[in-house]
Amino acid sequence: MNNEQNLTMLCDFYQLTMGNGYFKTRHASRIAYFDVFFRRVPDSGGFAVFAGLEQIIDYIKNLRFSEEDIGFLRGKKIFSEDFLEYLKTFRFEGDIFAVPEGTPVFPNEPLITVRAPSIQAQLIETMLLLLVNHQSLIATKASRIVRAAQGRAISEFGSRRAQGASGAVLGARAAYIGGCSGTACVLTDEQYGVPATGTMAHSWVQMFDSELEAFEEYCRVYPHGAVLLVDTYNVLKSGVPNAIKAFDNILKPLGARPVGIRLDSGDIAYLSIEARKMLDAAGYPDCKIIASNSLDEYIIADLIAQGAKIDSFGVGERLITASSEPVFGGVYKLAAVEENGVITPKIKISENVAKITNPHYKKIYRIFDNKTGKAAADLICVHDEQISDMLNADGSLELFDPDFTWKRKRVTDFTAKELQIPVFLNGKCVYQSPPIDEIKRFCAEQQKTLWDSLKRFENPHTYHVDLSERLWEIKQKLLSDRRD
Amino acid sequence: MNNEQNLTMLCDFYQLTMGNGYFKTRHASRIAYFDVFFRRVPDSGGFAVFAGLEQIIDYIKNLRFSEEDIGFLRGKKIFSEDFLEYLKTFRFEGDIFAVPEGTPVFPNEPLITVRAPSIQAQLIETMLLLLVNHQSLIATKASRIVRAAQGRAISEFGSRRAQGASGAVLGARAAYIGGCSGTACVLTDEQYGVPATGTMAHSWVQMFDSELEAFEEYCRVYPHGAVLLVDTYNVLKSGVPNAIKAFDNILKPLGARPVGIRLDSGDIAYLSIEARKMLDAAGYPDCKIIASNSLDEYIIADLIAQGAKIDSFGVGERLITASSEPVFGGVYKLAAVEENGVITPKIKISENVAKITNPHYKKIYRIFDNKTGKAAADLICVHDEQISDMLNADGSLELFDPDFTWKRKRVTDFTAKELQIPVFLNGKCVYQSPPIDEIKRFCAEQQKTLWDSLKRFENPHTYHVDLSERLWEIKQKLLSDRRD
Repeated sequence: MNNEQNLTMLCDFYQLTMGNGYFKTRHASRIAYFDVFFRRVPDSGGFAVFAGLEQIIDYIKNLRFSEEDIGFLRGKKIFSEDFLEYLKTFRFEGDIFAVPEGTPVFPNEPLITVRAPSIQAQLIETMLLLLVNHQSLIATKASRIVRAAQGRAISEFGSRRAQGASGAVLGARAAYIGGCSGTACVLTDEQYGVPATGTMAHSWVQMFDSELEAFEEYCRVYPHGAVLLVDTYNVLKSGVPNAIKAFDNILKPLGARPVGIRLDSGDIAYLSIEARKMLDAAGYPDCKIIASNSLDEYIIADLIAQGAKIDSFGVGERLITASSEPVFGGVYKLAAVEENGVITPKIKISENVAKITNPHYKKIYRIFDNKTGKAAADLICVHDEQISDMLNADGSLELFDPDFTWKRKRVTDFTAKELQIPVFLNGKCVYQSPPIDEIKRFCAEQQKTLWDSLKRFENPHTYHVDLSERLWEIKQKLLSDRRD
Repeated sequence: MNNEQNLTMLCDFYQLTMGNGYFKTRHASRIAYFDVFFRRVPDSGGFAVFAGLEQIIDYIKNLRFSEEDIGFLRGKKIFSEDFLEYLKTFRFEGDIFAVPEGTPVFPNEPLITVRAPSIQAQLIETMLLLLVNHQSLIATKASRIVRAAQGRAISEFGSRRAQGASGAVLGARAAYIGGCSGTACVLTDEQYGVPATGTMAHSWVQMFDSELEAFEEYCRVYPHGAVLLVDTYNVLKSGVPNAIKAFDNILKPLGARPVGIRLDSGDIAYLSIEARKMLDAAGYPDCKIIASNSLDEYIIADLIAQGAKIDSFGVGERLITASSEPVFGGVYKLAAVEENGVITPKIKISENVAKITNPHYKKIYRIFDNKTGKAAADLICVHDEQISDMLNADGSLELFDPDFTWKRKRVTDFTAKELQIPVFLNGKCVYQSPPIDEIKRFCAEQQKTLWDSLKRFENPHTYHVDLSERLWEIKQKLLSDRRD
């Protein structure tokens, strides 16, 4: 979880047995091209947010087997001694290309492309997928929840319900990239610079002999940072009146203003409206109302629609686990092999049509309309294709649906931007991950290039991810060669 | 994630602000009693499996703030210097009682009880919950999936879809406790002794010029461990026939027997039945059929009901994330405070009735019927109550429903077993976590003490978790004192 931890052994056992196999069959040094891509957006959303690259970089840099690791593998009695010897000096020596963190991404396009000797490319599969799947899942969910809040702040509160420590820490990092304003998790602040904030727990209120005493003591300790949790006993009859008394008794004489109150149970819409009236009447119109309690994008949208007087939201378990659909289905598939400089595209066919892959060493262009600044489509090409080679005589570009090829669209006055950037070349890291605030800003800016129709929760528009003519023909040929 | 990692800073920011507050208000050394409990079983199941204690022990032993941690907190400019000074020597000095890992547990009973100076008890909240919630979630889900498989082996395959590295590694540990036969995750084997196994990926098949060559090479490398993945192109027309050829060509001359084939897509029920016939006809009735592809307890039960010829299952994302309900809602609530040796029970009231807590320092008895060996009920008592004090003159024990007190039941000829055991006393660990295989065995044995009616997926029976007369009266008094 932290940058120094070595996760080399966090792989699937078959990666080692296949590695040993490649080694014995002399396939080890054959170059393989693998793509990381996903097949559908969680929650049937219109786009996903890519995240996890910074941790992939750390992982690749730290890849090495310790003496203990090799001893452990030797004990399995199925690996050859020369393979175990090879693992001692195992390093990643290939290339990795990836889209930057925070990029809105779509199904079936290569988010990451790995080009490396087979044995190396194979070994990193599990961790690449794990890191991309986890953080893209949470960043995508966060972007939905933030969107529902229409400008109100969303704070990530879910550590206690996270699936493991790295689920909490890196989940909070991903949530920030996706648009959250901060986290409750202190370690995420210390390690990744995501601002940590907090209010108080019910236990603080219970610890004192009365709710009023608990509130007054808290205001005394934090005169400029008091957010009081008002639902331990009864929000409107006890919590809010006591909060107002504590503000009057402790803050007023100091000339301090309260920061807020928090509601964590009950009918949040009704309670917030009533609490707002009470705070306003008492002279605290600037006291914010913060809501928590099993929130997600749907409940937040409903609360706002019902006129709830909430200034910001704390979102826990449903964000940190993306509970409505807790899996981001990124996969890692062989796209080509290379021997003596000749690249041979590879395809995986399946009885599930959705599981057929796009073959070959590829790259992606995102086509932006110059008039609106909006993204019109993504175009997946063979690695050496240039947009300029694909243009019609009038400078327009013809795009077509790879499944229904009669669906065609001609774009003019556009800018084509390549999405993948080099991250590792010949095993050397050539990319510096930006500071977290820059990633978050980039993510927000890129989302502005998407049409609103992609941002609906129900039935969003399907963004076009097309294949170049040449790539489409290569795929068709591989499919018909395999027909039986 | 590993035993040495220091997760002290993995706390919610409010635990530190409250800690600083307790410190300033002289509540720091007041003794607090906190319970970890949950309110409902995920997937509306009849019971949950408790797990995560071994990692809690590691966490508590390693609790300490480094110089960097304290420097980081100082930078927040809200903590007093004497509090930061105190953190330098911060250690856990209290008591922890817990049910052993692998125990079937039920809503509203204290799985863990912490007795410690408030500031210490408060600080460990997030990690205790995170560890219990994560591993209990996965162990519970695993027990469901294993149950559905009716004796067929379930292997945990989900690392790539886990929510973070510790989600993968400790999730696989929990899945093993819950009944899985092993994992694909190598690091879980190395760190926790959960046996790792694996087959091959589609990329192995694609890497060679033909499927047959890929299979033959694999059989050559692993003559005694060949499990061939047969769905890269077409299961029945290509995969199974090629597997049989490879067995004939490579294994037969060596006198070796194949281990299995794996199906990862398509109509698994139909394909397994047809593949079984082909393997049997070719003289390989001992070749196992392994199935994977988005499996869970419901799909496995259906496949078996449809006569699928499957010997074992690889279960990935739906187990490692417990995707049908990916949150185990364990909470950490103040139950009592102690000053000068006097324990004062505390309650949390809420407008959500389900959120009202059971007050006081407690213990749990599980009542086993001596005739059947089955668990009849759990009884939550005040810490100093003895079963012998609660018996009627005839030696029977009267239990009653705490919500509907007219529902009463008299048990005779029973054994009462205390569920919580001491884990830390005065900050010293007094418990040695058993080896993982022993925890797994214990879990299986304890599940045998549960009636089948608790093991249904649909509408399982609700197990009785009752309060002793004395505890019930304490709770009623606190509730009526708070009535307004």
